[in-house]
Order: sequence, then C-alpha cells, then structure tokens
Amino acid sequence: MQVALVMGSISDWPSVKQTADLLEQLHVSFDKHVISAHRMPQELQAFGQSAKAEQYSVIIAAAGGAAHLPGMLAANTTLPVIGVPIQTKALNGVDSLLSIVQMPTGIPVATVAIGNAGAKNAALLAAEIIALTDEDVNTQLVAYRDKQTKEAIASNAQLQ
Amino acid sequence: MQVALVMGSISDWPSVKQTADLLEQLHVSFDKHVISAHRMPQELQAFGQSAKAEQYSVIIAAAGGAAHLPGMLAANTTLPVIGVPIQTKALNGVDSLLSIVQMPTGIPVATVAIGNAGAKNAALLAAEIIALTDEDVNTQLVAYRDKQTKEAIASNAQLQ
Amino acid sequence: MQVALVMGSISDWPSVKQTADLLEQLHVSFDKHVISAHRMPQELQAFGQSAKAEQYSVIIAAAGGAAHLPGMLAANTTLPVIGVPIQTKALNGVDSLLSIVQMPTGIPVATVAIGNAGAKNAALLAAEIIALTDEDVNTQLVAYRDKQTKEAIASNAQLQ
Amino acid sequence: MQVALVMGSISDWPSVKQTADLLEQLHVSFDKHVISAHRMPQELQAFGQSAKAEQYSVIIAAAGGAAHLPGMLAANTTLPVIGVPIQTKALNGVDSLLSIVQMPTGIPVATVAIGNAGAKNAALLAAEIIALTDEDVNTQLVAYRDKQTKEAIASNAQLQ
Amino acid sequence: MQVALVMGSISDWPSVKQTADLLEQLHVSFDKHVISAHRMPQELQAFGQSAKAEQYSVIIAAAGGAAHLPGMLAANTTLPVIGVPIQTKALNGVDSLLSIVQMPTGIPVATVAIGNAGAKNAALLAAEIIALTDEDVNTQLVAYRDKQTKEAIASNAQLQ
Amino acid sequence: MQVALVMGSISDWPSVKQTADLLEQLHVSFDKHVISAHRMPQELQAFGQSAKAEQYSVIIAAAGGAAHLPGMLAANTTLPVIGVPIQTKALNGVDSLLSIVQMPTGIPVATVAIGNAGAKNAALLAAEIIALTDEDVNTQLVAYRDKQTKEAIASNAQLQ
Amino acid sequence: MQVALVMGSISDWPSVKQTADLLEQLHVSFDKHVISAHRMPQELQAFGQSAKAEQYSVIIAAAGGAAHLPGMLAANTTLPVIGVPIQTKALNGVDSLLSIVQMPTGIPVATVAIGNAGAKNAALLAAEIIALTDEDVNTQLVAYRDKQTKEAIASNAQLQ
Amino acid sequence: MQVALVMGSISDWPSVKQTADLLEQLHVSFDKHVISAHRMPQELQAFGQSAKAEQYSVIIAAAGGAAHLPGMLAANTTLPVIGVPIQTKALNGVDSLLSIVQMPTGIPVATVAIGNAGAKNAALLAAEIIALTDEDVNTQLVAYRDKQTKEAIASNAQLQ
Repeated sequence: MQVALVMGSISDWPSVKQTADLLEQLHVSFDKHVISAHRMPQELQAFGQSAKAEQYSVIIAAAGGAAHLPGMLAANTTLPVIGVPIQTKALNGVDSLLSIVQMPTGIPVATVAIGNAGAKNAALLAAEIIALTDEDVNTQLVAYRDKQTKEAIASNAQLQ
Repeated sequence: MQVALVMGSISDWPSVKQTADLLEQLHVSFDKHVISAHRMPQELQAFGQSAKAEQYSVIIAAAGGAAHLPGMLAANTTLPVIGVPIQTKALNGVDSLLSIVQMPTGIPVATVAIGNAGAKNAALLAAEIIALTDEDVNTQLVAYRDKQTKEAIASNAQLQ
Repeated sequence: MQVALVMGSISDWPSVKQTADLLEQLHVSFDKHVISAHRMPQELQAFGQSAKAEQYSVIIAAAGGAAHLPGMLAANTTLPVIGVPIQTKALNGVDSLLSIVQMPTGIPVATVAIGNAGAKNAALLAAEIIALTDEDVNTQLVAYRDKQTKEAIASNAQLQ
Repeated sequence: MQVALVMGSISDWPSVKQTADLLEQLHVSFDKHVISAHRMPQELQAFGQSAKAEQYSVIIAAAGGAAHLPGMLAANTTLPVIGVPIQTKALNGVDSLLSIVQMPTGIPVATVAIGNAGAKNAALLAAEIIALTDEDVNTQLVAYRDKQTKEAIASNAQLQ
Repeated sequence: MQVALVMGSISDWPSVKQTADLLEQLHVSFDKHVISAHRMPQELQAFGQSAKAEQYSVIIAAAGGAAHLPGMLAANTTLPVIGVPIQTKALNGVDSLLSIVQMPTGIPVATVAIGNAGAKNAALLAAEIIALTDEDVNTQLVAYRDKQTKEAIASNAQLQ
Repeated sequence: MQVALVMGSISDWPSVKQTADLLEQLHVSFDKHVISAHRMPQELQAFGQSAKAEQYSVIIAAAGGAAHLPGMLAANTTLPVIGVPIQTKALNGVDSLLSIVQMPTGIPVATVAIGNAGAKNAALLAAEIIALTDEDVNTQLVAYRDKQTKEAIASNAQLQ
Repeated sequence: MQVALVMGSISDWPSVKQTADLLEQLHVSFDKHVISAHRMPQELQAFGQSAKAEQYSVIIAAAGGAAHLPGMLAANTTLPVIGVPIQTKALNGVDSLLSIVQMPTGIPVATVAIGNAGAKNAALLAAEIIALTDEDVNTQLVAYRDKQTKEAIASNAQLQ
Repeated sequence: MQVALVMGSISDWPSVKQTADLLEQLHVSFDKHVISAHRMPQELQAFGQSAKAEQYSVIIAAAGGAAHLPGMLAANTTLPVIGVPIQTKALNGVDSLLSIVQMPTGIPVATVAIGNAGAKNAALLAAEIIALTDEDVNTQLVAYRDKQTKEAIASNAQLQ
C-alpha cells in the first residue's frame, strides 16, 4: 500500500472517511487502522517501526485533543507523516492543532487544517508526494485540480 | 526511588532543577532522566513499562511545545504521572499546556502550571501523594506549607 | 472514604456523575458534595481543613468559570487535589482551565482536561494514587486499562 | 479607612504601589495588606468577614495567575470588591483576567484592565464610589479628571 | 433613580432584563435606556454628561463586539460605570470583554463576566455600591446572599 | 487637508510618525491631532462632526487597548475612517485589534494590521482612496508600489 | 461599475448577499464574482491587474480560513480593497480575520468585522469612499445613517 | 534542484538559513529565492507554474503575518509545498500559522512549527519526501536521526 491511514479513535472515522474516499478517487492505494496513541502505545510503536519495511510511502494520522499519534508515529519512522487535527468539543481543535504542529526540532509532522478541510487535504498532500514517482496518481491529481478549478469557474457563471 | 523525574530535553533542566531541589528539601527520593519522546521513543516506552517494577510511586515529566512525553509515559504505566508544561518561545507554553492537559478519556496526566511555578508545584504534588504513606515526607510537607504561610504573613508585616 | 468528590454547583453534576460512576467501577470509595467556593466559603474552608482528619486520600473538585474551588481546597489541606475544569458557555472552559491550572508556587492542583474527558480521567488519576497502596483498586485499574486497550484493538478489527 | 488595598503577594507591590499613590492623591484613606489566597486562606476569610465591621467602603484586590483573591474576598463580604489582574510571565495576565472577571452568578468582582493601567484605574474606580458620599474625594476626582483632560489637550498643542 | 441601566442595542434586552429583574428584587430603583454608542453618539454624550445631575449613583452599560458604550459613558461622567460584555456570535464575547475591560489609565470601567452571569452580577455590584448608604438595599442584598448560600447548601443535601 | 491623522495619545506618536512620513512621501496632505477618546470625548465628538465640513477625505485613527477612538470618530462622520491598532504591553494589540475591527452593523472602520505595518499601511490605504481622484497622489502611489516591487526583486538577486 | 464584489467561494454568498443588498440600497453600482484564490489563481491575478482599467473604484473581497483573496487582489492593484472575514466552522473566523488584517508593510487591506456585521459594513465603507465624489451615493449614505439613528432612538422609546 | 527554498522577505533569511544549512547537511540539492507574495505577485505565479517543469520535487515556503506565500504557491502547482510560519512581533506567529495551515479543501500546505524548530523541520520533511526515491538522502536522513537519538541519550548520561 502507498499510504497508511491511521486514526486515534474509531470515533474519528467520519472525518477520516473523507480522506479515504479522496485517496481512492486519486488512485492512491491505502489501508486503514485505528491506533490509539494512549491506549495502544505498543501497537503504535510497532507500527511506526515497521512502516518503512511495509513499503508505505506516506503515513496520514488523524487525532484530536492532546493529539500525540502523528508525532509519535513520526518519532518511530523516517517516512513523511501527515497530521490531521480533529475538531474537538471544547477547544474546536486548537488543542489538536498545537499538539500536532508544534513538534520540536528533529521530528517533523506535515500538518493540515483542522477538521474536514484538513482530512481531504491530507489525501491531496499524500497524492502530491506519491505523484512525484507514480504517473497514474499524478494524472488523477492533475485532473482533480483541473476539475475543481472548472467547478469554481462554473460557480461564478452560475452566480451571474 | 519514590519519584522518577523526567524531562524531554536537557535544555529543560533549568526549570526542572527547581523540581529537583524542592523534592530534595521535602525528603522525597528521586532520580532524574532525559527521555525525549520524539528522539528516544523506545527508551520512553521501556521506561514507562518498567516504572512500576522499578518501585517508583510517581513520575514527573516536563516537556515543551508538542509535549508528548507526559502523556506517552502515562500511556505505558498505571502510576500517577505529573506533567509540567515548559514555557516556549513562540507560544509561551500554551502549546505545552494544551498538549499535556487535554488528554483523552482513559489516560490522565496531572497537569500543573506553565513554567517555574509548575516545576515547583510538581514537587509538592508528588510529595502530597507520597505523604499519604510516608510520615517523614508528610512532616516535611506540612513544615514547608507552614513556613510559606509564615513567610507570607511576615511579608505583610514588612509591608506596613 | 478514599475520595471526596466535590463540585462547585449542582449544575455540574451531569459531568461529575461520570467521575462518580467510574470511581465506583474502580472500587474506589467516595462521598460527594456540593460546595460553592463563592456561595459557601465557610463550608469550603471547614471542609478543606478537616479533609485529612476525615481520612480522605484524594479530593476531586470540579468547577467552571472563575473556578476557585479546587485551588481554595488545596490551600486548606495537604491532600492531593485534582481539579476538573467544567466546560463553560461563553469561553468553552478556557476560563475554568486557566483558573485551575495556573496556581502560584506553593499550592498545586492536579489539573485534567476540560469537560467529560477530564471528569472521567479525574477518577482514573485518583485511582492511580490510591492503587499505590490499595491492591483491590490496583487490580481494577489494571483491568480497566487492559479492557480499554482491548476495545481499541477491537475497534481496529471492526474497521477492517 | 475607606479602602482596603490587598495584594496576593508582596511581589505585586510595584503594580499596587501605583494604586496606593493615586488613592493618596485623591484623598482616599486606605491601608494595605498582603493576603495570599492560597498561603493565608484563614486570614483571607477572616479579613473578608470583618471588612464591613472595619468600616471599609471598598476592597481593592490585586492578584496574578489563578487569581482567587478578589473572588474569595467578594465571597466573604457584601462590600464592593475591585479586582486588578496582575500581568504574568507566561500568559501576560490573560489567566489573571479570566480568573477574576469570569465570576459565577451571585458574587461580582469589579474587574479593571491587566497591569498598571488597571492598578491606577482601581484607585479611580474606588474614588468614584466613595465620591458618591464624600465631597472632598469628589472634588479631588473631578480635579484629577479635569487635569488629565487638560494634559491631553496640551499634548495635542505640543504635537503641532 | 439610583441606577441608569443602558444597553447598546434593544437586541441586548434578553440579557439586560436579567439585570433589571435583579435590581428590582434588590429594591434598587432604576430606569432603562437604549443608547447605541455608534448610532446615537450625541445621545450617549449628553446622557453621560447629565448623569450626575440626574442623581444616578451608578450606570450599568451592556454592549457587545467593539463595545464602546461603557467606556464612552465613563469618559463623560465621574459616576462609577459597570460594563457588561454581551456574548457575541463569532467571538463569544471575547471581543466585548476586551473592548470593555482594557480601558487606558484615567477612565475605569468596572467589568463583570461575559453574558448572563455578568448581567446578574452587574445588578449585585450596583446594589453593593448603593448599599453603602441605603439601608433597605443593604438589607435586601444581605438577604439575597444568605438565600443563595442556603440554596447552595440545600442543593448539597439534595445531592446526598 | 486630505487626511486627518489622529492618535489617542501622544505616546502613540512613534508608530503614527510612520504614517505621517509615508503620507508625506505620497504627496497626501494631512494634519495631525491628539484626541483621546476617553480624556477628550467632547473634542472627539466635535472633531468627528466637523470633519466633512473641514474637507478631509479620510480620517486615520490610531489607538491601543480598549481602542474606542476610530469607532467613535466613525460614529460621528460618514467619511471613511481607517483604524490602526497600536501594539499593547500585556495583550500585544489583540485588544486594540478587536476593539477596532469588531464594529457592529452600521458603522464601519477600515482596520489595518497591528503596530508599525498597520501604521504604514494606513497611509497607503488613505492614498489609494485619494488616488481615485488625485492624479498626483496616484502617480506617487504607483511609483511607491513599483519601487517596493523592485526592491523585493533586488533583494532576491542579492540573496543569490 | 463602482464596486467589484468578489467572494472566495459560492458558499460565501449568504454572507456576501448582505453586502450586495446594501450596496444596491445605497445606489452603489457593482457586479459580483466568485474568484477562488486557491482554485483560480490565474483568474485572481488577471482580475486584480485589470481592475483599475475596468473603472472600479473599490474591490470588496470576502473569504474564510486561510483567506488569501483580499490580500492577493490588493497585491495586484492600487485600488482600495476591503476584506470581509467569513465566519468559519472550527475557528469562528479568527483564522479569516488574521489572514486578512495582518498584511505586511506595503499592501493594505481595509478589514471589517467577522461575519454578517462585516459583510454589511463593507458595503457602507465602500459607499463612504464612493460618496467622496458621488453626490447620489452620499445622499443615500447620509439617509441610511440618519435612518439607523432614528431606529435606534425609536427602539429606546419602545423599551420604555 | 530537488528543493526550491522560498521566503517572503529577505528579512526571513535568519530563520530560513537554518533550513538551508540542514538541507545541505542532508545532501538535498536546493536553490533559494525571495518571492514576496504581495510585492511580487507575478513572480510568485510564474514561479509556481513553472516549478514542476523546473524539476523541483518539493517547495519550502517561509512567510510571516498574513502569510500567503505558501498557499499561493500551492495554488499554482501540484508539487508538495511545505509552509514555515515565521515568528512575528505582535502575534508571535499565530497569525502566520493560521494563514498557512487553515487552507481550504483542495489545496494543501504541509505546515510545520512556528519559528526555528519549523525552519529546521521543513528541511527534514523535504528530505523524508526525497528519501523515498533518493538513496543518498535517505542514508543521510537515517544517520541524522540516529545521531540526534544518540545525542539525546548522551545528554541523559551527562545529566547523571
């Protein structure tokens, strides 16, 4: 698989499903996993350490609150890790965002927007990385971008 | 040792030293460790998993930014973990605080104030827990609290 | 009783009930109290001062807004005090969190997450402290943690 | 004395001295006190409860961080309490402000600005209250306001 | 009238009505006014300048967003002005709070909590000021405070 | 004069001087004024009401903290008012920004960035408005913009 | 047309329609456009560069989140650009506000309030600029302002 | 070149130099550019549109305040774009962070931490992407990570 799509809790699936659907649309192969950083720390570590051997190119990790999953996966691999801050009840995802993006020197996480926009953009960012060497994904990505430009232009026509 | 005093980076030592000094003053035995959650994830996991067998009663963990150390130690032990949010350069420790305190259901971290006040209070909180069963620490703790009350009262006299 | 479970207002009960239910499940004995820091300051003081003599091991205090209850109980006892920031209407509990966690040097409050996650984690944190010397609670705590790990793993299986 | 000027720590004196100086200038009589909410909770309670009998008209209370002093004094008296949020190191006084202003229904604190502007305005607000029945203070207050208007107008002339 | 109760827009009335009801209950006489700082700046100025001659003791001013009403009334009178930050749609009243409380040196506004708690507490704070010289209001205020203490104690009994 | 350049306090002059210097450079005529919203409310009102008759085209108003000056000038005129949020000590100008930009429906303030960038951009924005009908200012503005583009391009060359 | 009314997405239309309706009411001629900064960057650039030749006097640009539309239009023209921060789901428009208002030195955006108040005020601000040279718009603007003052005064009468 | 390293202003170079130094250390080839989104919008667009043809694999873009550079480059290319939020004077980089990370659906920016940690991590993230197909970079990256782990472990030894 090209992408490992990981979420901290199965309750994140409604957001993460949008990532999955878009990966599929972009012809990016992926499998999906619930790995709770706090409830499954051994599985997290094992997953991070074997990710490169498993031939993934990119890991996408979505988590909310004190969102340690993306950063801890990144600590256990040299694959690029994309972090998706899930919107939370009290703090609207500001906690998720800061817990994911404010990584210390040495271990980056590629952070996208809070919530659904970020969930979809994680798929696009993964596709951009994979498209560097996968012509089919590149074709899909370019087509997707063209289509969304055309839709935006069409919405302007419709407004008139 | 009664307390494991852990910091995410040796650069946190100026803050954490205040915890150490106060633990010493309160007759709480401890040892100290640098364990970077992101640079030493395997050591972190090993440390958390063996902490109970090592006979620690409490873990104090200080970290800044996307501060995953306290929460990941807590994920690997059932010992109480006290988290100290280190003050950071850009966000003044708001990132550290939210990354430590906003833990999801199931894995608590006992969070104290950002910066030096928190570093000292972590020692007092650990002493409060240990004092439940250690008479000497309890005596020191009560004496410390009495002394600080008397100093506050004395500062009032001095103001007049 | 092992734990005094205190709330600032009976309107906090829906959150605090989650603490109570989890304490019960973990075999931690407790009683529960409404003590408004601002409407019942004398009761607050009396409660804090007698808490040790009453043989409590831990106080859990939940409050919202300018949440003075946990800190003022802590000021009147050397028992460990766990503070639960109740989610508020205008500021979503940011006011509660800062009023509880930003305690000055000398008087710590062990702060957990805003809202329901914090309410449950307060029970777990209290159990972690009590489990240091109570084998039954320790057994329940370990079982609870095992169970939640298994449930997380099961949710991953279910996702596939 | 007309005003009780209270601070949570003698380290607040540099700010609070500005309140004192302005009270003096406005002919408002006052005495000053260090009462730490957390280190001197009994003194706090005793002070609040006797404040009315002591014939104070207004209490000014300055505190920083989890600033419980103004609210707890207000909980123990029906005198008007003015709260001054001291600027803090990590959070610049946002913690002080929210801990003071976000009081629950039933116990108000009259909150002024963070830091030195608030320290001075606390004196003016106390004077406004006292001026309702004290002609001398009223005369001083009106003169002070006239003078500051004239100075502002003069600064405009100087700018030209 | 003892109190001028002013709101920036008639849409603030649902909050401000709570102030009015509580003033009535505390036997504080008042009249009520819509004065938009931005739509009625001349009326605002005239109102502020004549408030003392009108024999008001206290002005309560509620406003939301860039809430200039309390501060501009304060600029035009030496009467104590209590500011109530109305909860707003986008920023939940953080804008109202900062626009009211962060007054510069020279012109204080006595700020209370955001929203309904603040609306009620404004009435109590006004009553506290008036009670300094009005025995009837003082009696009502003391009774109100006693009653709320008893209700809090009763809610504790009910919880058991 | 084309622009009235107003500041809430002469202490704002170091920032506002940057507006003045840039207006001069752009051939926009202006005069400058200290008008404190809170210390000189009558002068503020008079200034706003006569601004159109004085033939100004634009008002630039800089203020910090509870920055009521821009909004209150706007309330007294139908001329475009540009608001410059001065950086403040405790809250870094977040208070100034929200007090200026969050105007209610009916009275706009054209708000620019906090601090010096905003001070300079206020001059450019005023010039953009005036350039709609003043060919000389338009020429200066276009030249200024060309020059800054060339300088940015030159800095790129210098980097190589 | 006097005003180009631009939105980043057709989903912004419910807010932007309020701008349109008010422009119409004020006799300001305008046309409307969807130009997504991120999906239609070439159209954005072309639009900005030709705006002056198209004889627009003012551009109003509404956008949410990382709201680059107003600033990038401003970068491509010397016409005054008014930016409207759309309220967003996770961050309530704080992201939109900061992305629009915090422009660097050299390229101003005239920013109004988040959400509907800002949408309406953008129309008024545009009218204020156009009214400098368009007598009809000026008449409408003055009438609009008079009407809203009268309505506020009437709401006060209704309150009594 | 493998990486285009772009900054919004030459004043960002002290931060961006840290990216450059680390890229060099990791054997990632790159060239560097000043492209101001607001002062050089045409160069920005041209650069984005030709980036793929120029054979870059990754773009790193650093910017502060209303930081439009990373998002606008991303809008003009399907290459992965890494955004570095520069720490700013008034808002400490919160404005930069939100302007970069909160991209709407369709155009992702891979955002890293505010300031120097982010500047360095941008280099590591770029290296992670390039290491997917460049064995030399992969070797350097693994060595870098090993070295920093060893240094962290050594700092622990030194602490003892």
